[in-house]
Amino acid sequence: MQEADLRELLDGVRSGAVAPDDAVRRLRRLPYTDLGFARVDHHRALRQGMAEAVYAPGKAPEECAAIVSTLRADSDAGPIVLTRAEPDQVAAALAAQPDGVSHPGQPATVVWDPAPERPERVALVTAGTADGPVARECAAVLVAHGLTPKVINDVGVSGLHRLLASIDDLADADALVVVAGMEGALPSVVAGLVAAPVVAVPTSVGYGAGLDGVTALLSMLSSCAPGVAVVGIDNGYGAACAMVRLLGVGARR
Amino acid sequence: MQEADLRELLDGVRSGAVAPDDAVRRLRRLPYTDLGFARVDHHRALRQGMAEAVYAPGKAPEECAAIVSTLRADSDAGPIVLTRAEPDQVAAALAAQPDGVSHPGQPATVVWDPAPERPERVALVTAGTADGPVARECAAVLVAHGLTPKVINDVGVSGLHRLLASIDDLADADALVVVAGMEGALPSVVAGLVAAPVVAVPTSVGYGAGLDGVTALLSMLSSCAPGVAVVGIDNGYGAACAMVRLLGVGARR
Amino acid sequence: MQEADLRELLDGVRSGAVAPDDAVRRLRRLPYTDLGFARVDHHRALRQGMAEAVYAPGKAPEECAAIVSTLRADSDAGPIVLTRAEPDQVAAALAAQPDGVSHPGQPATVVWDPAPERPERVALVTAGTADGPVARECAAVLVAHGLTPKVINDVGVSGLHRLLASIDDLADADALVVVAGMEGALPSVVAGLVAAPVVAVPTSVGYGAGLDGVTALLSMLSSCAPGVAVVGIDNGYGAACAMVRLLGVGARR
Amino acid sequence: MQEADLRELLDGVRSGAVAPDDAVRRLRRLPYTDLGFARVDHHRALRQGMAEAVYAPGKAPEECAAIVSTLRADSDAGPIVLTRAEPDQVAAALAAQPDGVSHPGQPATVVWDPAPERPERVALVTAGTADGPVARECAAVLVAHGLTPKVINDVGVSGLHRLLASIDDLADADALVVVAGMEGALPSVVAGLVAAPVVAVPTSVGYGAGLDGVTALLSMLSSCAPGVAVVGIDNGYGAACAMVRLLGVGARR
Amino acid sequence: MQEADLRELLDGVRSGAVAPDDAVRRLRRLPYTDLGFARVDHHRALRQGMAEAVYAPGKAPEECAAIVSTLRADSDAGPIVLTRAEPDQVAAALAAQPDGVSHPGQPATVVWDPAPERPERVALVTAGTADGPVARECAAVLVAHGLTPKVINDVGVSGLHRLLASIDDLADADALVVVAGMEGALPSVVAGLVAAPVVAVPTSVGYGAGLDGVTALLSMLSSCAPGVAVVGIDNGYGAACAMVRLLGVGARR
Amino acid sequence: MQEADLRELLDGVRSGAVAPDDAVRRLRRLPYTDLGFARVDHHRALRQGMAEAVYAPGKAPEECAAIVSTLRADSDAGPIVLTRAEPDQVAAALAAQPDGVSHPGQPATVVWDPAPERPERVALVTAGTADGPVARECAAVLVAHGLTPKVINDVGVSGLHRLLASIDDLADADALVVVAGMEGALPSVVAGLVAAPVVAVPTSVGYGAGLDGVTALLSMLSSCAPGVAVVGIDNGYGAACAMVRLLGVGARR
Amino acid sequence: MQEADLRELLDGVRSGAVAPDDAVRRLRRLPYTDLGFARVDHHRALRQGMAEAVYAPGKAPEECAAIVSTLRADSDAGPIVLTRAEPDQVAAALAAQPDGVSHPGQPATVVWDPAPERPERVALVTAGTADGPVARECAAVLVAHGLTPKVINDVGVSGLHRLLASIDDLADADALVVVAGMEGALPSVVAGLVAAPVVAVPTSVGYGAGLDGVTALLSMLSSCAPGVAVVGIDNGYGAACAMVRLLGVGARR
Amino acid sequence: MQEADLRELLDGVRSGAVAPDDAVRRLRRLPYTDLGFARVDHHRALRQGMAEAVYAPGKAPEECAAIVSTLRADSDAGPIVLTRAEPDQVAAALAAQPDGVSHPGQPATVVWDPAPERPERVALVTAGTADGPVARECAAVLVAHGLTPKVINDVGVSGLHRLLASIDDLADADALVVVAGMEGALPSVVAGLVAAPVVAVPTSVGYGAGLDGVTALLSMLSSCAPGVAVVGIDNGYGAACAMVRLLGVGARR
Repeated sequence: MQEADLRELLDGVRSGAVAPDDAVRRLRRLPYTDLGFARVDHHRALRQGMAEAVYAPGKAPEECAAIVSTLRADSDAGPIVLTRAEPDQVAAALAAQPDGVSHPGQPATVVWDPAPERPERVALVTAGTADGPVARECAAVLVAHGLTPKVINDVGVSGLHRLLASIDDLADADALVVVAGMEGALPSVVAGLVAAPVVAVPTSVGYGAGLDGVTALLSMLSSCAPGVAVVGIDNGYGAACAMVRLLGVGARR
Repeated sequence: MQEADLRELLDGVRSGAVAPDDAVRRLRRLPYTDLGFARVDHHRALRQGMAEAVYAPGKAPEECAAIVSTLRADSDAGPIVLTRAEPDQVAAALAAQPDGVSHPGQPATVVWDPAPERPERVALVTAGTADGPVARECAAVLVAHGLTPKVINDVGVSGLHRLLASIDDLADADALVVVAGMEGALPSVVAGLVAAPVVAVPTSVGYGAGLDGVTALLSMLSSCAPGVAVVGIDNGYGAACAMVRLLGVGARR
Repeated sequence: MQEADLRELLDGVRSGAVAPDDAVRRLRRLPYTDLGFARVDHHRALRQGMAEAVYAPGKAPEECAAIVSTLRADSDAGPIVLTRAEPDQVAAALAAQPDGVSHPGQPATVVWDPAPERPERVALVTAGTADGPVARECAAVLVAHGLTPKVINDVGVSGLHRLLASIDDLADADALVVVAGMEGALPSVVAGLVAAPVVAVPTSVGYGAGLDGVTALLSMLSSCAPGVAVVGIDNGYGAACAMVRLLGVGARR
Repeated sequence: MQEADLRELLDGVRSGAVAPDDAVRRLRRLPYTDLGFARVDHHRALRQGMAEAVYAPGKAPEECAAIVSTLRADSDAGPIVLTRAEPDQVAAALAAQPDGVSHPGQPATVVWDPAPERPERVALVTAGTADGPVARECAAVLVAHGLTPKVINDVGVSGLHRLLASIDDLADADALVVVAGMEGALPSVVAGLVAAPVVAVPTSVGYGAGLDGVTALLSMLSSCAPGVAVVGIDNGYGAACAMVRLLGVGARR
Repeated sequence: MQEADLRELLDGVRSGAVAPDDAVRRLRRLPYTDLGFARVDHHRALRQGMAEAVYAPGKAPEECAAIVSTLRADSDAGPIVLTRAEPDQVAAALAAQPDGVSHPGQPATVVWDPAPERPERVALVTAGTADGPVARECAAVLVAHGLTPKVINDVGVSGLHRLLASIDDLADADALVVVAGMEGALPSVVAGLVAAPVVAVPTSVGYGAGLDGVTALLSMLSSCAPGVAVVGIDNGYGAACAMVRLLGVGARR
Repeated sequence: MQEADLRELLDGVRSGAVAPDDAVRRLRRLPYTDLGFARVDHHRALRQGMAEAVYAPGKAPEECAAIVSTLRADSDAGPIVLTRAEPDQVAAALAAQPDGVSHPGQPATVVWDPAPERPERVALVTAGTADGPVARECAAVLVAHGLTPKVINDVGVSGLHRLLASIDDLADADALVVVAGMEGALPSVVAGLVAAPVVAVPTSVGYGAGLDGVTALLSMLSSCAPGVAVVGIDNGYGAACAMVRLLGVGARR
Repeated sequence: MQEADLRELLDGVRSGAVAPDDAVRRLRRLPYTDLGFARVDHHRALRQGMAEAVYAPGKAPEECAAIVSTLRADSDAGPIVLTRAEPDQVAAALAAQPDGVSHPGQPATVVWDPAPERPERVALVTAGTADGPVARECAAVLVAHGLTPKVINDVGVSGLHRLLASIDDLADADALVVVAGMEGALPSVVAGLVAAPVVAVPTSVGYGAGLDGVTALLSMLSSCAPGVAVVGIDNGYGAACAMVRLLGVGARR
Repeated sequence: MQEADLRELLDGVRSGAVAPDDAVRRLRRLPYTDLGFARVDHHRALRQGMAEAVYAPGKAPEECAAIVSTLRADSDAGPIVLTRAEPDQVAAALAAQPDGVSHPGQPATVVWDPAPERPERVALVTAGTADGPVARECAAVLVAHGLTPKVINDVGVSGLHRLLASIDDLADADALVVVAGMEGALPSVVAGLVAAPVVAVPTSVGYGAGLDGVTALLSMLSSCAPGVAVVGIDNGYGAACAMVRLLGVGARR
């Protein structure tokens, strides 16, 4: 997959330094460690520019710990994030790798080896206080990548003056994550006010006809403001990753 | 059902003016005309304070004409509205009752004997030009009841400055019908700006994930602005009727 | 947003009494208090004619208390309603602001500073005893606004004689909230009997094919009685707010 | 499957009149005719007490004709019904078997060899004129079985007085088919008024949130009146068959 | 509603024995008792030929007891059924009215004053052992009406020989309730074997794509065997009531 | 159903060795044992080539034990599998029949009398560690039939190099079960790489818009790789049975 | 991807016969032809053991012709199938490649270069005549692979005797495709009668609550007969491909 | 909304150059032109950095022409895009403004005044040829903004070698739009291969269980590759706008 490596390998074959059978074997020997219960991927940071995430649900506490430890044993690994972890999973992982940091107000997300600060300004906007847990998961993953978001809380569309009061913060942002449940209208309004990219996160917050976030999801996908990009329900982690991907464009060019 | 009538009838029985058998028969003889294919209701205006509507789909043109004629033959009938009529249904009804008026830009709705002008101010707000047909059906039915709505078009939430430019019109309205498709966010924003009643009409306008109006419907039912009342998809007629009901409260008191 | 205030401010600028920079700042200084975790809106009562509601789910008990206290600190605030609160949230809020009143039979709803009695007659109709909690949430919010509803319980359409026995109460009402689960047919029947506005509340009561209230919701939105206005599933609070909005029309004119 | 036939066959085997191999073959030779494109079932009338129906959609006109002819060639066959036929299918079938009769107002249903009149009284109740086609399909199939329904049209629940005016007809019926679209509330109300069986047929009539009959279907399945039995959307044929089944209980006992 | 009563009342008015105002009042005084939290209907047995059911969910234990006691205080009441009751509700009701009987294997259903035995033969067929609770609720309600069903368990369509082994029992039944979850195919097969009425009950049993009974429900409504009548998911009570309604036809004629 | 048995029986009738009435009775006496609460099927192994499975949910522990014991009492029975059993059900069954074996890592599945080893190579591929329980249920049932699957874990499509690293194992398999949640893309990719049959199992693993496995299910059914066959959500047991069926083709020919 | 080719290439590099840059280029030069509007895959037959299919919808007639011609230009290509083609697409393809054969009764499917006859016996079973088009698409693709299915039509579960009459044909089949709409019960019954693999195809045939095939699809996925494998709605092509995959197991071993 | 403008206005008020009433009026006079049937927004380019789009459905041809002309009359306007236009709408717009350009292969999209070329490299990847129309709509809108996408067609996941053959093009892109119908798996695979932002567009292409694009939509939202951002079904326009937003980050910094 990495063309340079491939060519070097083939040069080695040509020169006789590498036997064809070895080459075949090495082409197969890909950069992951097989722990039996999981294949730990060492080079995702390299390939994708983003932290390796360990999604905790369904894993034993000691499995969480083992995966985190395996990842950190690789000197090249970037930041590591443990997400949606129960307290015993967090405890096991921190016992094995004590220098991780739980995110304030979101203990289910733990970060090791966060990336250095980056200059881009990300706004993290929520419609209501109940959207907080999803927003904090997003914030934790942003921080892991060196991005400290500007948080703008509780500016749902039924109180426009609260949103308009934050219009400078919205306008100053390089990119915005907008988190909303219920009718999910906030991303449409925000995307009508700014030229920056808007990643919308529907949350399962709401009642009446919220359908556990499906209403907000559909609403965001149908936004009358062009160019709103949407991730799955309650997926603060995914929104942060989308943000890291898109901010990387300018950084790489 | 009308207590006064019932008492009068019973007084008649007591005084011997009405034989018990006749009373039973009269209690059964309710105020409708049975045309065979339909039971035409003469007293809905009395009972419900709103026009008698003839819903055209599924009726033969001559049936539409017959029902309209039967209704008008009753001297007490209020306004009459033919809704969702095809051109041949409209033609047949107007041939039989030539003084009906098609609504401008909405030929499928015809009104006879509109009520006199009423003083209440109704705002009829649409998110986009594509919501026009539904809004015009609503307007036609409002006009039939003596209400000429103030129309505010094309003020969807992705261009807040267009909405805010109409804020005086919104604030001046006694009541508002808000028509929107796509993500259906407009009623939430409007209801956050005014204290007046907001009747929201989802439309089947949109693409992407609009699901033929279901997204807008769910969104309106989940509004973060309290007290938004919703009618069915594309149901401009129903919204007008809801408006007539609610404006009647002040008129009656 | 308040034109008079804006003009006064601009007059101040013209006269030199207000520096342009101050004006910009004041235009931004909108009537809410930022508690960090929430933006408490002081002027919703002014703008929307309805109580400020504190929606408890997802808030810490002390956050509930703090928001209620902040709202009451504003001398202009109208009634305040804490909704869907758990016992510890209720306890914290009442500890901080002891003169709140829990609604009878609905301890999750607490009201402070209810509005004075109003003359309009609201009927609150339920199809069955299981609809009670939703109806009581609605009643609590109505009471907060000075409206004591006439409650008509257990008049579902499968026992028409029970409904007809209450026909005077239905006819006397200025406006009606109709609460029903299962097949949600009651609003259609009631709206066929009265000319007053009907706000329908589907409940998640039922079994068989009730789909947690979706069946009742769809049924109400498809009502063959024109002009039924619908709020979300189990949303007694929203129905009360819709009622406050619509009764305000006559009051304001 | 017919125990008497089976025993006769086995007696024949025992007596030597039937060779075992023949018995096996005869056990396999079941009472249908294989036309290649269809297996025409001769004994459904015997086994199920109801007409053989030929469901036209997807069949060539000549196939419709051939199946009807094959069925009539069997002297024991009961009534035959061609359902949901296009004009060319009707024409082909009537050309082959000219003594069939199209139902008045429902040309898509043709009946041959209707059963003699039966004494049971079936009421066929519709909520609105638009439910007519489904009701007429049901009526045609009832007539094929010797049942002439009492038709009560246009008595939807939003005009209760129209329904109550027919209360004697409802009460006199041995069994009722209730056909309704939109919110599908009529069966609940009817079943609350009578002790007789109620078969409910949802129709795809309606708008707003009718979802092509799904709303009416769900509503009927969630009826607060106990013992409402439901068939599929627009399935007038199925409702008639359910009626034939249930009326057969008294006839057979 | 009862014509004889009405005529007697009017005769009384005519003769002067009843004052008109009293007549109005008596016309309003319908046969139920208002307990405040519920309207207990005394004449449902008369009007509908079926037991009065007390649906327990959402009622306090003492409310269950009070309703049962009120019903039994009416000397004319038929059987009484308490359904879906929790142990404390059962205990309270039995403490107040000790001669009720819990159904074997279904303690949530309690019956008082069961009707005398009736001669009709009802078969109660289940696809699997997991459908048992729904079938037993149905059986309890049948027993309350004097019908002891013949139970045929565990004859799902994937083992046709088990079903065919019971073919005599199926053929002997006057009417059948067929209870099935998963793919809900059993009613289609049974209705193809018998001419008797088939009431199908989908259950929420299953996995894979059972969708909590929706798959079985849709399957039964789409049955290729004509005349299958369906009730809601897990609604054993409703199926029994449908059975009582349909068996009443022969009994009454 | 078994033609040879039928002919022998008829020969017996012919020869007089079997009386016709006895033959009728024996034709009805089919190969199952009726335990009252369940009909235990002895010949499924013969008829279907697969283990008899006892689906535990909804059965009492002693019922589980009784069914397993009854099955094993039949000397011809093949392997027996107890599935989705709670610990007390497992304990009861193992107390009665101690030589059963719980599957490693999947104690809810117990196997008695596993079939001898078979030579076909089955690959069992999972997208992520969270798919493990479903995969292990599948593995347990495969082992019961003599098939020890080659397990390939954690090769989801977002890390193609991990999947490609296992390409030899995929290519070597006679047949593959592919288990995936979330977007369910893995079967499409695998089926594009191999000519062998692919049975896809959607799992309820995921978040965002996974809808409890419905997304993966729909995705697999829409696969752009032709010939993917799908079983229900989380149905590892069904996938193993499909595998046993299809591998039987070559074995039988 | 083909290990042998890879090793040969690397041997060539080692020996100097292939320059590393050339090797990289050749590793990239994969076996397809890029026509600009499509990438025509020459080696699918090799890799997947099944015909190359050209799915016509959305392609211009001349594009269909060009793709078929390109595929046939490759001497190694196996059978080629054009599916779901409109008449003009068929005409264009046959003009370019005249020796293709349209399937009888299914002109939308054209086959070139069918594989030689294979010995396996495939049964193709339909529930009703309306399932014919889907079955014929399946048959056409089977024929392309050398498999002439035994067709068993019109054996839906509501007439069990018709199905049982074909029981020998079912039992003789090596594998079965079962095609059914409406309630989709047929695969459950068939899979209970045979040990062979059953591939179930839901069709969009039906009315009432068939939901365009979704009911049949869900029903098949929830089958109580273990090991039914399902493909998408109306996907006769996919069922044939699944059949080719599974029959290949025995052929290859 | 533009702070600088606001301050200048207030400075004018202070200096007396602007009367307060004029200021109020000017604050209301926002930058759009009201054509009656639509409010044409002149400054969206300024505010959002993207073309003004005229969505044609529901607009008369002359309305399309008038809106395009009004927009172009504003000297500051950026590019203008007419989308989803019928031929008569295109003709009318081009008659009024002849220098527009229809996109090759996508005549429904017309562009005026495209932005100058930009250096960022956008890859536009499709799973199959049937995704072409959606991709071309996206391409047209990208071109309007100065972005000429690199198109990579027909690389669906069932033929991985075709995708891997384009791996350099994928790796070289600054950002990718990935368009796919059916199971929608392509964005997951692509996002696992690259670090760049991936905007996924589900299309309504497919059959079997594609549900008009809902399956692909859900699949993309559930992607196991982190950071995939999704727009609505068939919304090529929206994907292009999302791309313009995100590429603007680097451009602006």
